[in-house]
Amino acid sequence: RSWRMSENGALPLRGKVLTVDTMNANVKKVDYAVRGPIVQRAVQIEKELKEGVKKPFEEVIKANIGDAHAMGQRPITFFRQVMALCTYPQLLDDNKFPEDAKNRARRILQSCGGNSIGAYTTSQGIDCVRHDVANYIQRRDGGIPSDPDNIYLTTGASDGIVTILKLLTAGEGRTRTGVMISIPQYPLYSASIAELGAVQINYYLNEEKCWSLDISELQRSLQAAREHCDPRVLCIINPGNPTGQVQSRQCIEDVIRFAVKENLFLMADEVYQDNVYAEGCEFHSFKKVLFEMGPEYSSKVELASFHSTSKCYMGECGFRGGYMEVINMDPEVKAQLTKLVSVRLCPPAPGQALMDLVVNSPQPGEPSYQTFIKERTDVLSALAEKAKLTEEILNTVPGISCNPVQGAMYSFPRITLPERAINEAKAKGQAPDMFYCMKLLEETGICLVPGSGFGQREGTYHFRMTILPPTDKLKIMLNKLKEFHQKFTQQYS
Amino acid sequence: RSWRMSENGALPLRGKVLTVDTMNANVKKVDYAVRGPIVQRAVQIEKELKEGVKKPFEEVIKANIGDAHAMGQRPITFFRQVMALCTYPQLLDDNKFPEDAKNRARRILQSCGGNSIGAYTTSQGIDCVRHDVANYIQRRDGGIPSDPDNIYLTTGASDGIVTILKLLTAGEGRTRTGVMISIPQYPLYSASIAELGAVQINYYLNEEKCWSLDISELQRSLQAAREHCDPRVLCIINPGNPTGQVQSRQCIEDVIRFAVKENLFLMADEVYQDNVYAEGCEFHSFKKVLFEMGPEYSSKVELASFHSTSKCYMGECGFRGGYMEVINMDPEVKAQLTKLVSVRLCPPAPGQALMDLVVNSPQPGEPSYQTFIKERTDVLSALAEKAKLTEEILNTVPGISCNPVQGAMYSFPRITLPERAINEAKAKGQAPDMFYCMKLLEETGICLVPGSGFGQREGTYHFRMTILPPTDKLKIMLNKLKEFHQKFTQQYS
Repeated sequence: RSWRMSENGALPLRGKVLTVDTMNANVKKVDYAVRGPIVQRAVQIEKELKEGVKKPFEEVIKANIGDAHAMGQRPITFFRQVMALCTYPQLLDDNKFPEDAKNRARRILQSCGGNSIGAYTTSQGIDCVRHDVANYIQRRDGGIPSDPDNIYLTTGASDGIVTILKLLTAGEGRTRTGVMISIPQYPLYSASIAELGAVQINYYLNEEKCWSLDISELQRSLQAAREHCDPRVLCIINPGNPTGQVQSRQCIEDVIRFAVKENLFLMADEVYQDNVYAEGCEFHSFKKVLFEMGPEYSSKVELASFHSTSKCYMGECGFRGGYMEVINMDPEVKAQLTKLVSVRLCPPAPGQALMDLVVNSPQPGEPSYQTFIKERTDVLSALAEKAKLTEEILNTVPGISCNPVQGAMYSFPRITLPERAINEAKAKGQAPDMFYCMKLLEETGICLVPGSGFGQREGTYHFRMTILPPTDKLKIMLNKLKEFHQKFTQQYS
Repeated sequence: RSWRMSENGALPLRGKVLTVDTMNANVKKVDYAVRGPIVQRAVQIEKELKEGVKKPFEEVIKANIGDAHAMGQRPITFFRQVMALCTYPQLLDDNKFPEDAKNRARRILQSCGGNSIGAYTTSQGIDCVRHDVANYIQRRDGGIPSDPDNIYLTTGASDGIVTILKLLTAGEGRTRTGVMISIPQYPLYSASIAELGAVQINYYLNEEKCWSLDISELQRSLQAAREHCDPRVLCIINPGNPTGQVQSRQCIEDVIRFAVKENLFLMADEVYQDNVYAEGCEFHSFKKVLFEMGPEYSSKVELASFHSTSKCYMGECGFRGGYMEVINMDPEVKAQLTKLVSVRLCPPAPGQALMDLVVNSPQPGEPSYQTFIKERTDVLSALAEKAKLTEEILNTVPGISCNPVQGAMYSFPRITLPERAINEAKAKGQAPDMFYCMKLLEETGICLVPGSGFGQREGTYHFRMTILPPTDKLKIMLNKLKEFHQKFTQQYS
C-alpha cells in the first residue's frame, strides 16, 4: 500500500486503500470487448450528436451487441401480456387479456410465495418453471427424459456459465484448471476465466471451412495445454457466437467422443437454438446427441447446457432470464452447486416467469396461438433474410470475405488491411482491427466490435457485426461499410 | 483425479471430472444458513403435509427469511402499476391507470433501448434511474451532493456487496485481504469472503448494550487480525441484520474516525434504511455523517453504500433491484469496476425500473400520492407494532431474552439451553441451537435460523426470527414458541 509523509511531516498522508496496484489482480486481467472502448466512444458520440456537434452522420448504429429490442424488434405480445398480469394481478379481471395469458399468469403466481413475483423464489428457481423447462427439453429432444431436479434457473445464460466455471476451477500452477474455448469466442468466456484465475486454452475454428470445428485442432490444443495446466472443461457455442456457424450432428458426436476420451466436462452454450437460417442446417442439442449415442456415453459424460430469454425470437435481454441443465453431475457437487446459488438468494422472478413462457408458449387451439406463431415466424424469417443479405453484400466488397451466417445473430467477416494501416495502428499501440473499427465509427457512426476482442488467428483481422438492424437500415449500413472499406483501403495503400 | 481399472482390465473406468475432491475448494467452504438444512427440511415437511402426512401442525411458518410478500404483505399499488405499464406499454392507452404512473413508465421506457425493458441497459444501469437515485440520496442526506456517475445499479444489494469485496480481494498468505464483519452477521458476508478466499475478521457486537458496536472491540479484532492478514475493509450493517439495532450518529462518527485512522475501506449495508421503529432511533447514512464531519474526512474515506428494493416497505425481493454509491473511489479502480460489471451485461431491467420508483415515489399533488403514503405507512406501522410485540412476548419466556427490535426485520433473542440438550446436540454433531431449531420445526412447523448460522459468542445460543408474519399469525407463532421452549427446557432438565 502507498504511504507518504505529509509536507509538514505531521500526519502520514495515506494513499487510497483500493488502487489499481492493490486491487484484485485477476479482475485487472478481465477484458470484455463487446462493451469496450469502441462502445464507450459510441456513447460519447451519441451525446455529442444530442448536443448539436456536427458529424458526417446523423445517428450511431449499434451493431456491436445482440440486443434485438434496441434495434427495433417488437416483444412477443403474449409474453408481455402474461408478464403484465403477473406484475399487476388486478389485470386478471380485465377482459382485454386472453384466457390463455391469464391461465399462464395464474399458474406462475400460484407457484410464488404469497402469490407475488415480488417474493424470493427457491434458489434453484420456481418449481413449476423448472418442470416446464424439463418438459420443453424433452419435447425438443424427441422424448429423451429431462429431470426438473437437473434444471437451475439463472440470471441470463452468463450467470450459469460463470457458476459452472467457478465450480470447476481448482488447483495451482500446473494443476490449475484449464478451460478450452473456441477462437473466435464470445468474450464472456475469456473474461470469466481471467476473473477466476483459470487457464484459457484456445482451439481455433476453421475459417476456411465455414468456421467448423476440427477434432484434430482440439487434440493439438489439448496436448499443448497439458504441458502447463490441467484441462478439464471443453466449451462449445452452437450456433456460434461470433462466427454464426451451426454444428453438424456428426461434429457434435465427434466432440462428445473426444470429451469421453480426454475426460473433459462439456459446457454447451445453446442460447441461439432457434436461430438457424441456412438450408440444410439444423440445431442439434448436445443433450440429444449424447443420449442417442447410447448409455455408454449418456451415463458418463458430464454436461451443462445453457439457454436464455435474450436471443432466438424473443430478444428479451433486459429480463436476464435463463436456465441450465446439468447431466451426470456428481450428486455431492450438485448439492454444492445448490448451496452456492442460494447465497444470491434467487434469479430475478420476472426473468424466471418469462423463461417459463418461452418453454411453455401458446399451443394450437389456445386463443393466442395464431398471433404468437405469426410474430415468431416474422422475426425469424426477417433474421434469415438479413443473414443472407449481410453475407451477400459483404462479399461484394474487395478485401472483405464473409462466411455464410448459418445461425445466431452475427457475421464475422475477415477484412484485408493495407500494410500502412497496420503499421499506423501498431505505432498507436492499437490492434489493427480496433484502429479500423474506430475510424469506421468516427466517419460513419457504425459501431462494430473488432475481431481482436474475440480472438483470431495471428495476422488475420475481422469484425463482428449483428444482423439485427431493420432490413432498410441494415442495407444502408452495409453500403456505408462498403464505401468506407474502399476509401480506407485507398487511403492506406 | 480418480481413475480405476475396469473389471475386465480393458478400458480405464474414469471417475467424474468434477467431484467434491476436485472442485473449487473455496466454494466448499461457503455456508449460507438462511437457506441451509433447516429450510430444506421445512420444504420437505411442506411436501409431506401436501401429501397428507399427519403432523402436530397444519402449516409451516417460514420466519427464516426477510421475504415480506411471501408473508402476505401486499405490493405497493403504484409500483406495480408502473411496472405493468413498462412491461406492456399498450396499457398506456388504458384510462384505468393514473397519469403519474403513466408518466413514470414513459420516462423509464424513453431511457431504454428501443423503448423496451427487454433491451440491455448500460452496464452501470439506466441513465435516468441513476440520476433519480442520486437525487434521492441528496434529498435523504439533507442536500449533500450525490453524483450519478458514482451510482451503480445492481442485482439486489448482494450483487453489489460481492462486487466490491471482489475488487478488494488481493494478496497471498499474510498479505491476503482481511474483511472485518460484525458477529452476528448476515451470512452473505461470510459466504462471499469464503468464496473469494479472503480472510474473515470477526468483531463482536455488544449484546448487553442492545447489540451496539464498541470501537474498542473493533480495535481488538483488527490488532489480532494484523498478525495473519492485511485488514483492508470494514463492513457495517445498519440497521442491523440479524440483530435489529440502529446505530447512533455518534457511533457512526466513531467508526468513520476508526476507518481513517486504520486506513480501511468502508462498506455500509443500508438496505433497512426505512425500517426504524424504536423511539429515539433514527437512520443516519454513513455518507451523510461522513460529509458532515468535514472535508478532512469526506475527501478521504473510501465508502461504498448499498440499498435494495427488497426490504423497507416495498419488500420486492423477487425483482432483484438495488444500487450502490461509491465515494472517493480511485478513478482507475472505478474504470475497472465499470469493466467488471459490463461482463454480466446489465442488472435486470425490471429491477432497475422498480428501484427508480422507490427513489422517485409519488409526490404531493400527484394522483397516486395519497394511496402511496397510506400503503407505505400501513406497512411500516404494522412492522413497528410487530417489532414491539415480538420483543414483549419473547421476554415473558423464562430462558429467552430479547433485545429491543429497533429496526430492520428480525429479532435475535438469546436462548438458554439445558446442559443435557447441549450434550445431546454435540453427540449428534449438531450446533446446539440447530438441534433446538430443528426440534421446533418438527414439533410446531415454525422455521427459524439458528444463531450459529450468523455467528455468536462462544457458549451463547440464539435464533433469528423475522417479524414479518401478519400480526395474528405472529402472535400464534410467538405463543407456540413460548410453549415449545418451556417444554424443551423441561424435557432436557
